[in-house]
Amino acid sequence: MPKRQSKAWAGRMEAPTDATVETFTTSFPFDRRLYRHDIRGSIAHCGMLAKQKIIPRRDAAAIVRALAQIEAELDQGRFRALPSDEDIHMAVERRLIEKIGPVGGKLHTARSRNDQVALDLRLFLRDEIAAIRALIRRTIEAFAELARSHPELIMPGYTHLQPAQPVLFAHHLLAYVQMLRRDDERLADCLKRVDVLPLGSGALAGTTFPIDRDFVAAQLDFPAVSENSMDAVSDRDFAAEFLAAGALLGVHLSRFAEDLVLWSSQEFGFIDLPDAFATGSSIMPQKKNPDVAELVRGKAGRLIGNLMALLTVLKGLPMTYNRDLQEDKEPVFDTVDTLKGSLTVLSLMLPQLRPRADRLAIAATAGFTLATELADYLSTKGLPFREAHAVVGAVVRSCLKQQCTLADLSVEELQRFSPLFAADVKRWLTPQAAVARRAATGGTAPINVRRQLKRLGK
Amino acid sequence: MPKRQSKAWAGRMEAPTDATVETFTTSFPFDRRLYRHDIRGSIAHCGMLAKQKIIPRRDAAAIVRALAQIEAELDQGRFRALPSDEDIHMAVERRLIEKIGPVGGKLHTARSRNDQVALDLRLFLRDEIAAIRALIRRTIEAFAELARSHPELIMPGYTHLQPAQPVLFAHHLLAYVQMLRRDDERLADCLKRVDVLPLGSGALAGTTFPIDRDFVAAQLDFPAVSENSMDAVSDRDFAAEFLAAGALLGVHLSRFAEDLVLWSSQEFGFIDLPDAFATGSSIMPQKKNPDVAELVRGKAGRLIGNLMALLTVLKGLPMTYNRDLQEDKEPVFDTVDTLKGSLTVLSLMLPQLRPRADRLAIAATAGFTLATELADYLSTKGLPFREAHAVVGAVVRSCLKQQCTLADLSVEELQRFSPLFAADVKRWLTPQAAVARRAATGGTAPINVRRQLKRLGK
Amino acid sequence: MPKRQSKAWAGRMEAPTDATVETFTTSFPFDRRLYRHDIRGSIAHCGMLAKQKIIPRRDAAAIVRALAQIEAELDQGRFRALPSDEDIHMAVERRLIEKIGPVGGKLHTARSRNDQVALDLRLFLRDEIAAIRALIRRTIEAFAELARSHPELIMPGYTHLQPAQPVLFAHHLLAYVQMLRRDDERLADCLKRVDVLPLGSGALAGTTFPIDRDFVAAQLDFPAVSENSMDAVSDRDFAAEFLAAGALLGVHLSRFAEDLVLWSSQEFGFIDLPDAFATGSSIMPQKKNPDVAELVRGKAGRLIGNLMALLTVLKGLPMTYNRDLQEDKEPVFDTVDTLKGSLTVLSLMLPQLRPRADRLAIAATAGFTLATELADYLSTKGLPFREAHAVVGAVVRSCLKQQCTLADLSVEELQRFSPLFAADVKRWLTPQAAVARRAATGGTAPINVRRQLKRLGK
Amino acid sequence: MPKRQSKAWAGRMEAPTDATVETFTTSFPFDRRLYRHDIRGSIAHCGMLAKQKIIPRRDAAAIVRALAQIEAELDQGRFRALPSDEDIHMAVERRLIEKIGPVGGKLHTARSRNDQVALDLRLFLRDEIAAIRALIRRTIEAFAELARSHPELIMPGYTHLQPAQPVLFAHHLLAYVQMLRRDDERLADCLKRVDVLPLGSGALAGTTFPIDRDFVAAQLDFPAVSENSMDAVSDRDFAAEFLAAGALLGVHLSRFAEDLVLWSSQEFGFIDLPDAFATGSSIMPQKKNPDVAELVRGKAGRLIGNLMALLTVLKGLPMTYNRDLQEDKEPVFDTVDTLKGSLTVLSLMLPQLRPRADRLAIAATAGFTLATELADYLSTKGLPFREAHAVVGAVVRSCLKQQCTLADLSVEELQRFSPLFAADVKRWLTPQAAVARRAATGGTAPINVRRQLKRLGK
Repeated sequence: MPKRQSKAWAGRMEAPTDATVETFTTSFPFDRRLYRHDIRGSIAHCGMLAKQKIIPRRDAAAIVRALAQIEAELDQGRFRALPSDEDIHMAVERRLIEKIGPVGGKLHTARSRNDQVALDLRLFLRDEIAAIRALIRRTIEAFAELARSHPELIMPGYTHLQPAQPVLFAHHLLAYVQMLRRDDERLADCLKRVDVLPLGSGALAGTTFPIDRDFVAAQLDFPAVSENSMDAVSDRDFAAEFLAAGALLGVHLSRFAEDLVLWSSQEFGFIDLPDAFATGSSIMPQKKNPDVAELVRGKAGRLIGNLMALLTVLKGLPMTYNRDLQEDKEPVFDTVDTLKGSLTVLSLMLPQLRPRADRLAIAATAGFTLATELADYLSTKGLPFREAHAVVGAVVRSCLKQQCTLADLSVEELQRFSPLFAADVKRWLTPQAAVARRAATGGTAPINVRRQLKRLGK
Repeated sequence: MPKRQSKAWAGRMEAPTDATVETFTTSFPFDRRLYRHDIRGSIAHCGMLAKQKIIPRRDAAAIVRALAQIEAELDQGRFRALPSDEDIHMAVERRLIEKIGPVGGKLHTARSRNDQVALDLRLFLRDEIAAIRALIRRTIEAFAELARSHPELIMPGYTHLQPAQPVLFAHHLLAYVQMLRRDDERLADCLKRVDVLPLGSGALAGTTFPIDRDFVAAQLDFPAVSENSMDAVSDRDFAAEFLAAGALLGVHLSRFAEDLVLWSSQEFGFIDLPDAFATGSSIMPQKKNPDVAELVRGKAGRLIGNLMALLTVLKGLPMTYNRDLQEDKEPVFDTVDTLKGSLTVLSLMLPQLRPRADRLAIAATAGFTLATELADYLSTKGLPFREAHAVVGAVVRSCLKQQCTLADLSVEELQRFSPLFAADVKRWLTPQAAVARRAATGGTAPINVRRQLKRLGK
Repeated sequence: MPKRQSKAWAGRMEAPTDATVETFTTSFPFDRRLYRHDIRGSIAHCGMLAKQKIIPRRDAAAIVRALAQIEAELDQGRFRALPSDEDIHMAVERRLIEKIGPVGGKLHTARSRNDQVALDLRLFLRDEIAAIRALIRRTIEAFAELARSHPELIMPGYTHLQPAQPVLFAHHLLAYVQMLRRDDERLADCLKRVDVLPLGSGALAGTTFPIDRDFVAAQLDFPAVSENSMDAVSDRDFAAEFLAAGALLGVHLSRFAEDLVLWSSQEFGFIDLPDAFATGSSIMPQKKNPDVAELVRGKAGRLIGNLMALLTVLKGLPMTYNRDLQEDKEPVFDTVDTLKGSLTVLSLMLPQLRPRADRLAIAATAGFTLATELADYLSTKGLPFREAHAVVGAVVRSCLKQQCTLADLSVEELQRFSPLFAADVKRWLTPQAAVARRAATGGTAPINVRRQLKRLGK
Repeated sequence: MPKRQSKAWAGRMEAPTDATVETFTTSFPFDRRLYRHDIRGSIAHCGMLAKQKIIPRRDAAAIVRALAQIEAELDQGRFRALPSDEDIHMAVERRLIEKIGPVGGKLHTARSRNDQVALDLRLFLRDEIAAIRALIRRTIEAFAELARSHPELIMPGYTHLQPAQPVLFAHHLLAYVQMLRRDDERLADCLKRVDVLPLGSGALAGTTFPIDRDFVAAQLDFPAVSENSMDAVSDRDFAAEFLAAGALLGVHLSRFAEDLVLWSSQEFGFIDLPDAFATGSSIMPQKKNPDVAELVRGKAGRLIGNLMALLTVLKGLPMTYNRDLQEDKEPVFDTVDTLKGSLTVLSLMLPQLRPRADRLAIAATAGFTLATELADYLSTKGLPFREAHAVVGAVVRSCLKQQCTLADLSVEELQRFSPLFAADVKRWLTPQAAVARRAATGGTAPINVRRQLKRLGK
């Protein structure tokens, strides 16, 4: 039975902490996850204390040795937590003093938990942003590879979920690449604001010890040092900005997931989901459900919820550190895990998606997707576009009545709607032509899709 | 090493589920929490199947016996989960078949996971709403008891955090009781919509078996049975409504927490926090921080975030069940735990709060809190209230210049501002009189505060 | 050029309000919308003041007469606002005093803006909840009518957007009726908490005048009177609860909108959108887009945003009234308008939806929607459901390979998968039979759909 | 009476748009605000069409002339909107054709509303981001100026709203400057993603006309051109990112507002609010309320709500443009207006804030804010910090019992707690010394505050 330890700050109090309060306030169950970052930060801090002769070099060596042992205990699941451990920081310090006696108490010189916890979360997030960006790039590569495998495949492009104009399957996929590239950029921008050393800010006002913050920054690879101690201990912008970037990334994934759900539906039938990435029903034996896509779509909800939670926590707090800030970690952890899960599963699934060329070919011209070609045709003959649009609207209405397609109309029939139609109009009415003509930057023509892919290579 | 089990729906698939997909899609790590409700529901379902002769009574008995054993295994931490367990429902069924062979497969007759999971969450939420309501009532009682212990204590009432008018400390506390009573009512209203049996809706369309839903409802104490199977399997209104009620309850607690933070500040100094409910600082030895209140305030953020998450999940989903709905459980669990934690700790802390009568007495009249009395006085003498207000505004401005209080002014001095002031005005200028005069329903007079407390007794 | 008026509270200040501050703080541009409720409340208050002899009856009569004139000015757009009008309450009072002189200043006796604004918003919301509920009922009736017009029409029911089992088109529509009925109930529950008179609470502590709150409540049709003045002036629960109910209602409408978008897609082709309810494209002449449905779906976003806005405003506010509460009105107004707009347009559109029977009939059995029938069949023959499920999974897989449907299989072919199949199995394999067999409460059988419709009549 | 105009896309429809639908779907009432950007974009597009010989130069000239006239009509409030105007784009085109006949219909050649609306919103947001950044810098300057005016003023620094350590008033103010500088950076980063030309993407697939997008980009000062047309018409990341940056900026302002509310409270009494920036009460004549600060705090709610609204709108939308996206504009407009309002009023108010030196001086050492000095003192003498902390905790507890301050203790009395205390300890126990000693980067020492201010100058 682990015995209770008195708190680091027990000196001033007359009564011990209520047990319910201990349970209510502890963050150890979730912030233990930060232990590697906590110990890494402590070792850098300790090195600086020794270098600056704030504590004896010998004491520092003992502390660093013991910290390494504690990390091993945590790695190996041998670390015994106590109910009185308020958080990972105090748990490590408690264990340190157990191991090397009062000298362990020197580690906290010139440091407060307020700057320590800010440091740990920044170290953690820096690593995780790197991991998420690597997964984004892997997903981009998976999209690009799928696009490369189907360079000429045409499908209907949609607006309002109505067939609009033919597009390349590859072009559709590369739209998601654009989103992911922005996500990657946004995380890079966020990282600039994560990557600032808060340690040395003390509880809120700085410290009286002759510390060397640049040394610590160098040890921990921080390119910058915070300029205002009060800001440094109360700032969670970097976490909120990360959650916002994460929510938007999640929204992008949810949009692709929606496309997957539609494409794998019986009615669209545009792709075959690999069996290994689908699940069945407990009751309906025929079912093959796109659960992965649905979960990716649904998880956008929690990502947005996490952002909402932290913004609300921060709103209206006075300077500087308030305990409310402890509520920063769980949403950050959950967003990290959710993003990594969704990106991983999508990047594995993408290479196995099989577009169904037959269905896509039929769909590509269904719903009069070539009607714009006719309007553009008339417009090139000098008819104001707005009038050309009206003429073709009437052509479509007439086809709908006769239940025929645009391709079914002869040139003569077209001429009944406008004398500007001539024999060459027929050449405009294929999806291949429609796609190829859209060659300006950004358009769906194969030449432009190749250009997009090439740019990724860089 | 637990071996992998093939899925209940493996029959239709050519390839086994990808291991990453298994990890990504499983809900077992969190929905195992529903096991008691799952087993309770299964037992009721099984009893009905036997009664209706859909399965032999002997088979039903074997199933029920085994389910009881599985519950015990789960209770005692002896249940071995497999990576292939998709959720608590399939894990229990898998174990059931391990124990009693293929006959265990009969339990899922006339049932789908879609109606089963809806049932489990409703059973769970029904229990937890009861638990939360009990804690609300305990907290109300703690507020009331504190109010009863200080029946005459006067403090400044605030608007805009500026001293406004004197009020009873008890009246202030009872404002929170009103909020909590509405929360309790709101949860009771929500319960009506939780308390509807979805089982029997099948996957979405009902079932072909001659089931008796009223029998199951009676077994499980549901006063109502869902009327439309498609709605029943896709409805998560009851969860969203619970999260909304929980967010608002959390907002109320955050408002009281804000009061506690202010009251225990050096500057207000209105209460002494019990040491057992305060925490210290790792660096500043003098600190006694209201961490409990701050955490209660901060946790409003996650409650609002949970609501946001679920509403976003539901938005725009087509009929009926979509896997996105799996994202309903974690926010519900988190809101349940958060509310129970905050209510518990507040209800324990309230009895130990010590208002500081000396500080409250001084503050009660600081900031000219009796100025309204003067305006009301003039108004009763026939001066239109708007003019009375202007006269007293001038009196206050004059006091500010002379750095005196209203009580310092003689009747003659007051008469310089209005001839309507007479000797009796002095009697109006005590906080006791100000409080006592506000005796209409809802006012802060002691008589009304007693009335509020009495009404609680009922 | 309207001249500036000094503020009601100018007496205490040395300097006039900064013009930017006036613009920043005024709520008149939006809360003028409350003028009818404000004047109605003032008339009731004034009547009470006279009855209680707090002001002379003659003065009250003059005030009431002038208020009626001011209402007419506002009705007719003749009311001249001044930049110094802080809000509708002060604008009306300012105009009142312009019209009848200082006696107008008596109206504010025994009243504060804090209880007045709470009253106005409650009166407003009470009316709007009634209006929204009427529109909900109109929309329910439109769903029901459409269901009645197609009592036997069968369509595929979906889970995970994959064909699951055949259902009645009417059953699908009635699922939305269930949601709307809960919305209606939820608003009725909310109304209980809206319908409480706050007037008489003064600024926060009640009033010193001998008011009769029950009289005012009776005049204004409030069944209840608030019990705690501090709560009454700071309570915006009723608004938050309304926004939550509105967000959930919006989520329901967004789900139906999603169904409409899918159904009117080229690929599903389940309904014809009436031309009058569709819009076109500025560039693609063939387009007929379901914009109404898309906007209804999108507007769920703002409804959720409004709820989040108010919850965040309230979070962490200390007692009692704080100016932050002024931020309550715009989200409430926007949610009211959005809900009324969406419900109106849907209730007009529903009667004009034309389901395409031919497409629905084909889709109803596509995707092996009758596979569950086979499993149920085997289960009734004694095979444990879980094994029956596996057998039929194999049947489906075999059909997929041979590219045939279940109906294509002879009894002999089926018997290769299980000897339990007999000639009678063929009777199970029609969508009509599948639907009719689901006759337990809530199932999709015609008998149950009629029952649902009948219950609505009550 | 304005007569109805038929829609640009009426050609394909059999029936005119329902009037309710027209009202429900129109965005003209709010997007008319974009008219200058819309016309600017059209002029650039038209110039390109002429340059590329897609339309005759003479037609282009006529169009540009007419557009300038239409802009003037809109500027001067002479523009007559029709109920059939769907949005600002169609309203301008309709008027163009009224003015110059069918040739006006050529403007829409090679353009869709989908790329046009994306262009307009980007042009708008680019301007508004610049305006907001200018206001941020003005607010930073106001903070800095106030800091410069009080270079030595000491106040208590807080954590958990409990006195922690003395800090410079200037240091506290400069913490907000750090936040605002990050906001400015974040908007600059966001601008990179706003500043991309979408025009030329057509409806979704690009255009068949030989357009020159780089020319248009140059005309409109866009440094980049979108690379994928499908992404370009469906991308609202730039708006969501702006709303996220705006929400965080709003949270910062809400935190400063909270400080202002506290500081101007009777109990803190740290600042005098200028009368011109305070408001009074309709009932309490003494009141001087910090309404401006409260509204700034409250408005964080709507900023967060706007972000939530848009994220929810985007979540789960399939490619590409869906009408839901029309819901992007109102939250963007509201966030722009809210931020500009709050920044303007704060930047005007800051120069007029008067810190009350007397109150700050007393508060600076109240609550044992110098206790950390004692612990640091002991630590420099070699006592492990953790033990030093415990010793000082006991000192504080003893002072609390004797109701004395740290300064009241003699060296001898201190030595009873630790023999390490010597005469020099007294020099540590002044707020001036405490502040000055915190001289490492980021600390509150005057030297560092000057450094922070100097860096701003750059």
